[in-house]
Amino acid sequence: MTAWTLAQRATKMNPSVIREILKVTEQPGIISLAGGLPAPQTFPVAQFAQAAAAVLERDGAAALQYAASEGYAPLRQAVADLLPWDVHPDQVLITTGSQQALDLVAKVLIDPGSRVLVETPTYLGALQAFAPMEPQVVAVDSDDDGVHIEDLAAKAGSGAAKARFLYVLPNFQNPTGRTMTEARRQQLVERAAELDLPLLEDNPYGELWFDQPPPAPLAARNPEGTLYMGSFSKVLAPGLRLGYLVAPRALYPKLLQAKQAADLHTPSFNQRLVAEVLQGGFLERHVPAIRQLYQRQCQAMLAALQQHLAPLGVTWNRPAGGMFLWLRLPEGMDALALLPRAVEQHVAFVPGAAFYAEGGDARTLRLSFVTATEAQIHTGIAALATAIRSGA
Amino acid sequence: MTAWTLAQRATKMNPSVIREILKVTEQPGIISLAGGLPAPQTFPVAQFAQAAAAVLERDGAAALQYAASEGYAPLRQAVADLLPWDVHPDQVLITTGSQQALDLVAKVLIDPGSRVLVETPTYLGALQAFAPMEPQVVAVDSDDDGVHIEDLAAKAGSGAAKARFLYVLPNFQNPTGRTMTEARRQQLVERAAELDLPLLEDNPYGELWFDQPPPAPLAARNPEGTLYMGSFSKVLAPGLRLGYLVAPRALYPKLLQAKQAADLHTPSFNQRLVAEVLQGGFLERHVPAIRQLYQRQCQAMLAALQQHLAPLGVTWNRPAGGMFLWLRLPEGMDALALLPRAVEQHVAFVPGAAFYAEGGDARTLRLSFVTATEAQIHTGIAALATAIRSGA
Repeated sequence: MTAWTLAQRATKMNPSVIREILKVTEQPGIISLAGGLPAPQTFPVAQFAQAAAAVLERDGAAALQYAASEGYAPLRQAVADLLPWDVHPDQVLITTGSQQALDLVAKVLIDPGSRVLVETPTYLGALQAFAPMEPQVVAVDSDDDGVHIEDLAAKAGSGAAKARFLYVLPNFQNPTGRTMTEARRQQLVERAAELDLPLLEDNPYGELWFDQPPPAPLAARNPEGTLYMGSFSKVLAPGLRLGYLVAPRALYPKLLQAKQAADLHTPSFNQRLVAEVLQGGFLERHVPAIRQLYQRQCQAMLAALQQHLAPLGVTWNRPAGGMFLWLRLPEGMDALALLPRAVEQHVAFVPGAAFYAEGGDARTLRLSFVTATEAQIHTGIAALATAIRSGA
Repeated sequence: MTAWTLAQRATKMNPSVIREILKVTEQPGIISLAGGLPAPQTFPVAQFAQAAAAVLERDGAAALQYAASEGYAPLRQAVADLLPWDVHPDQVLITTGSQQALDLVAKVLIDPGSRVLVETPTYLGALQAFAPMEPQVVAVDSDDDGVHIEDLAAKAGSGAAKARFLYVLPNFQNPTGRTMTEARRQQLVERAAELDLPLLEDNPYGELWFDQPPPAPLAARNPEGTLYMGSFSKVLAPGLRLGYLVAPRALYPKLLQAKQAADLHTPSFNQRLVAEVLQGGFLERHVPAIRQLYQRQCQAMLAALQQHLAPLGVTWNRPAGGMFLWLRLPEGMDALALLPRAVEQHVAFVPGAAFYAEGGDARTLRLSFVTATEAQIHTGIAALATAIRSGA
């Protein structure tokens, strides 16, 4: 038997808690409020079928050939056009999902031991993408309005210990569903500039607003101090793995080199498909239907929570968009301990502890309101109430 | 202006020499013998169009949804079935091109300073994929039959300095086009086992043989001591970015975790497209046509070399398959210095020095015989002769 020696970083890698939970939820009869799977009925299957036929008919050889690492020029232009500040297509790097953007940023900005700041709690996938580069991840206190500016300043560090960046999800955050207020955004951008602290802004959910769009992105306020990440996963379909980075000019060449080394380029066919589907302002017609569906499902979940969980002392927030809602169990309860009892009742969620870079509130949990139907949401929340009562 | 602090590894990243050359070759009128672009007329565009329509009609929602990081089960099964040794689908990890496999292996097996062995010369993209993990890359002497077994033993190292693996491309190697003999393969596998040295076997070109298939893969001789990489880029199309790893059971879980962190999963739609196209033994009908085309084009290049470059003292090898041919210029000449003169004559190639991990033979250069037509190959080689004479 050959003795394979693992890299130190590999000994620290752990299976994704969420992916392990998702396996459980694949059991028949389980209502999953766990995963962040967009509602499949929103996928524009017919448009993709038309686009696939058109792209292969018109440009088949090019769509199936190797392509530039930067991305397909018309798609880079389309991304620049979609964004609400002055973005040049040369700043856009197409990535294989926005998860890859996190991997590239980590490679380019994180040395072993580098301080990296994140919200409390934060997106688990970002922690996993950063981990191979072995950062020291520091959680900045956060509330319903976003990160605490004074705690940010206290933790930004200086000299060699200065944080490489703050990773922040201002819109309908994963996992909490919260949105950073206009005032907090402005404070954050100003204070980050004073601290000379780069921002990594992740915005997969920004288009999924219910009643009004969220405030302008951080990148729009300080483009040269912010690396911006976007995705087509939530407005078109995640299975194509299409995301993008908008990078300050100082960083773009290094991110591009990391991209070349990572997978040469994002699939040419997928980039051309999405560019084709986007033509003629498709998103303007398509995204409102997603917003309405998710708002209805969120309202259904809020109503079910009020009916079944309010009497049990559970609390939650009211997201203004996105896919997730954040619950807090009564004192003395533990969401991780609750999960197997919930699965017995045929409902699944993600325990909140998975989303904390440091420590963690064992009473919290994340619910998705986008994958299950309204009827399933009602049944699932009632089942969750049964699970909670069974442990009381 | 925000001061972005780059990771140490990023300061060492350099633009791909090949990608920079490819930009030059995009100028109109240049005959490129530089890039490794498969002949686009071999892409089964009609089959992909049928498959796209069928997959979206039958499984549209699933094809556009998030999916398992391991890959699409029927595609993993198809890969296992294609390989000429006993492979279980559970050992197959679908990757976003085989370039990503190199990135994942580097993350899981390379610590900063780890010794990694490569052939002389070797695939440039592997050096770029390994670089972010900061290995000490050591080149093992190689000849037309493959790596030198005694030099391998001398450089394998021991204790903390023991090499993590030998990266090797046994079939129609990039850049040289050479193929490791049966005898050398058997010696290599036996000696590697004695040395307890893991092998990373990269086989993108193995199906592109001319007169007879190459000897069995190294992985078939020692599956638990070999990580095997394959790709659909050369037998179907590179633009879908579909490759795979076959991993010993000891490594699979860590590679899977690295994959999750890198891009969650390879695009579901692309995996289903390829699984659909593969049905009914498509490759058995399709690949022979690629082999015949490339053999004809290789013969055209060999004939043109004999006519135009033999009189100038240039030497070259005769590949038994693949995409590349390796030239050596007469004493005193330098391929890097020749390149601008060649571009003046409207022909491009890749200087061989780019492919050496250490040192490098400045007289070598790589030619691809698959992208240009036979007529272009003839014109291009004649132009190369003019360029060589112009510098004499």
